[in-house]
Amino acid sequence: MASSPDRTAANRLVALSGGEAVRAMGRVTLVGAGPGDPDLLTIKALKALQASDVLVHDGLVSAEILDLAPQARRIDVAKRKSRHTLPQDDINQLLVALAREGLEVVRLKGGDPFLFGRGGEELSACREAGIDCTVVPGVTAALAASAGAGAPLTHRGSAQAVTFVTGHAAHGEPDLDWTALARPNQTVVVYMGVSTAGFIAQRLTAAGRAGSTPALIVENASRTDERRILTTLAGLATAAEGLKGPALLMVGEAMAMAEIKVPGETATLAVVEVQNVSSGQ
Amino acid sequence: MASSPDRTAANRLVALSGGEAVRAMGRVTLVGAGPGDPDLLTIKALKALQASDVLVHDGLVSAEILDLAPQARRIDVAKRKSRHTLPQDDINQLLVALAREGLEVVRLKGGDPFLFGRGGEELSACREAGIDCTVVPGVTAALAASAGAGAPLTHRGSAQAVTFVTGHAAHGEPDLDWTALARPNQTVVVYMGVSTAGFIAQRLTAAGRAGSTPALIVENASRTDERRILTTLAGLATAAEGLKGPALLMVGEAMAMAEIKVPGETATLAVVEVQNVSSGQ
Repeated sequence: MASSPDRTAANRLVALSGGEAVRAMGRVTLVGAGPGDPDLLTIKALKALQASDVLVHDGLVSAEILDLAPQARRIDVAKRKSRHTLPQDDINQLLVALAREGLEVVRLKGGDPFLFGRGGEELSACREAGIDCTVVPGVTAALAASAGAGAPLTHRGSAQAVTFVTGHAAHGEPDLDWTALARPNQTVVVYMGVSTAGFIAQRLTAAGRAGSTPALIVENASRTDERRILTTLAGLATAAEGLKGPALLMVGEAMAMAEIKVPGETATLAVVEVQNVSSGQ
Repeated sequence: MASSPDRTAANRLVALSGGEAVRAMGRVTLVGAGPGDPDLLTIKALKALQASDVLVHDGLVSAEILDLAPQARRIDVAKRKSRHTLPQDDINQLLVALAREGLEVVRLKGGDPFLFGRGGEELSACREAGIDCTVVPGVTAALAASAGAGAPLTHRGSAQAVTFVTGHAAHGEPDLDWTALARPNQTVVVYMGVSTAGFIAQRLTAAGRAGSTPALIVENASRTDERRILTTLAGLATAAEGLKGPALLMVGEAMAMAEIKVPGETATLAVVEVQNVSSGQ
């Protein structure tokens, strides 16, 4: 059992138990793969990948990162909209079942597992099943988008706080605390908000955030096809039209610092647009 | 010029210019060092460290991380309270001056440069001086604290958003949007909030957040001396007493998932306390 050549870590555990023919219980590590650029993996994440028997990943994790674990079996449970996806409960049970086979299971997630990664649900499922489960944090997309654009999430005098929300809603439109999000002096980052950008902008504006507030859209943050659009809250919906990759909406005064071309940056930036939509208000 | 043996990167730039005796202009990279564990550096941050001529760092960056760049000169501009610190304007000017000497300058910051790291101010100073400045994101402390404790920042049904604020105030008490922070169904993370924990808890409670809301304090997240205290909002002030290291206050229902001992974790956790303070309300 647990004897196929690629089950390196499981084999090691069995060996450590004194060579007895017992099956060592596997374990699950929820690993943040970061925003996409393989160089934005942490060293700890890289080590976890290299020690894994099986990678359970979604469509947001790039091929370059998967290739860092050539020894591991790969299971794609892609969660991108309009593609076939495995329901969360099935993913939870898959992780438990793989660990029970004695495998070192890495559940690889774009960004960070605990920030819109549904890692909490997977951790709970492992705990309930008595499976050892640890978490390796990752650089969440907002940090990479902010760094790449040169637009800080917090900034003296204009952003004393930052709030992360998701624009994705299971049914219809996101139910967020618009009054809180509309307050000044903070940056609001919306994950998965492209398809609801118009609704979000309308609600924020109705709740009092000025239509002239700078808004930065970053698609495919840190990837070779990264694309940035600097606009305003009033122009957000128009600017978000046609975006296909995963994108962040970032709203707040500090986003005005975003540069069309950050000094020193060369080929990694495919397209950058700056929209002045003050006339659109 | 720019000829001392440790100025490796600057020498390389001069060499690339064809060996002419011109001084290449240096540049500044703002690098997130992550929460403390050297394994939570990104690969990109490690590369930046290895290519640096000089590291400008503060007291939150650990010796193990500084040792990853043995070739670099080190300048400590420690910003911890009650120690001698360089004012931010002086740090800005230092970075510009070092870059003008033709050096590869790495400004190394705990966590992420753009989330309570004042990186925006340093970037602005470089831009104004015409110095090339790029940013490498890092794992911010909250992500590491959350991962280590097994308590997700967002969680289905209990935390649909997360807000990061700072408890530090230049004069007196932090001026935060208590009404917004007191709303349910979100996690509130307070950086640098130990000394104002009592004030913060009182204001959140007064604004309507239940005193029974779970609250997790994580001191020295990801370091060998990490310490976690699971309490409630009502018990926050008492629990924060006596903490000396950098610590996060994390308030929200999902924090109840924090484990005293995460499965698989051994020596990295020095002390863990769980306080049931419901009687203290």
